[in-house]
Amino acid sequence: MRKINIKTNFHQEFVDITSKIAELVDESDVRNGLCHLFCPHTTGGIIFNENCDPDVCYDIGIVFDVLAPQRPDFRHSEGNSPGHIKTSLVGSDHTLFIENGKLVLGRWQGVFFAEFDGPRSRQLFVKIVGDAANYAVKSRK
Amino acid sequence: MRKINIKTNFHQEFVDITSKIAELVDESDVRNGLCHLFCPHTTGGIIFNENCDPDVCYDIGIVFDVLAPQRPDFRHSEGNSPGHIKTSLVGSDHTLFIENGKLVLGRWQGVFFAEFDGPRSRQLFVKIVGDAANYAVKSRK
Amino acid sequence: MRKINIKTNFHQEFVDITSKIAELVDESDVRNGLCHLFCPHTTGGIIFNENCDPDVCYDIGIVFDVLAPQRPDFRHSEGNSPGHIKTSLVGSDHTLFIENGKLVLGRWQGVFFAEFDGPRSRQLFVKIVGDAANYAVKSRK
Repeated sequence: MRKINIKTNFHQEFVDITSKIAELVDESDVRNGLCHLFCPHTTGGIIFNENCDPDVCYDIGIVFDVLAPQRPDFRHSEGNSPGHIKTSLVGSDHTLFIENGKLVLGRWQGVFFAEFDGPRSRQLFVKIVGDAANYAVKSRK
Repeated sequence: MRKINIKTNFHQEFVDITSKIAELVDESDVRNGLCHLFCPHTTGGIIFNENCDPDVCYDIGIVFDVLAPQRPDFRHSEGNSPGHIKTSLVGSDHTLFIENGKLVLGRWQGVFFAEFDGPRSRQLFVKIVGDAANYAVKSRK
Repeated sequence: MRKINIKTNFHQEFVDITSKIAELVDESDVRNGLCHLFCPHTTGGIIFNENCDPDVCYDIGIVFDVLAPQRPDFRHSEGNSPGHIKTSLVGSDHTLFIENGKLVLGRWQGVFFAEFDGPRSRQLFVKIVGDAANYAVKSRK
């Protein structure tokens, strides 16, 4: 398991971490396999979406604020219930494919750390797993 | 990695792809393992839900349109921000279990490609991974 | 694949199943690997969120009811369309890391079965997969 450190600067922010994850895949010796992501926070998650036009994340942010606004009937006293709710909606765990030593992503697709209660110092856990067949091949050598 | 081609016919549509995925599982020699799904698009995703009564997907569609409507303050100029937002909500990556050579699904459960900016030609990537124990057994033979 | 039985008591309820999953990890001989969760129901799902202050789940529940209320234009006749919609939003499949024989979770993070059409008797499927390297080590003995 590897860890990526992420420093967020805003209350809500989508940080493009595609290149950081791609670096970890490069550093591994995995040609074909899976790259599992896990966010250990409860007010931040992971989304896969367009990283070409930054306006896409801007628009996602507007709607997320509408979906989970502050409410007077919230009971959790820390004031960050919207962040907890948004995290449940986008998820803390996501998985990417690795083919020929590279992350598999669509043409417009990137990986974002979704900050929902920043600014904060965050971590993302990454576990890269080669296909079992890879290991079999190695063990035959 | 295998690819499934999907032709969608409507702007928003939930296409039942359960049987297409089950076919790929059948074609593989995996008895027990995992079937990983990845959607390389940013305005289309994957959901697991009821595929018995089509009215369930109809109702899901109504609410998704309410959750992510067009807005005058959107900045992304392509007009498909609702599709990007819905994709972030349902997710691009999902995983199914394989037991005894078959997909594990609940009685009412199916797998849908969720089109949020159609009609389009779409792809879904499928990676079927057998349990490592399977490979161990094979290598002992 | 193992199964966890869950008895829910309310129409909407978030049941902390962290310790049940941790038990299954303990019972397995996996030191490093992945713990895959799958919910075979279409009106119940899985979320990872704070299990320290129960008010967090209370607040999540309020907003989920706002996001997916009953509507007169729903077609599905069973009256549980909100449950189907909420399930599509949180997801039926999630994955945790295992390190040194323990589930990897953030300090405040727990695993919840999310009941969206209870009370009911539910099941959660758990598949624990050790890293292939584990198996390689074993086969060298």
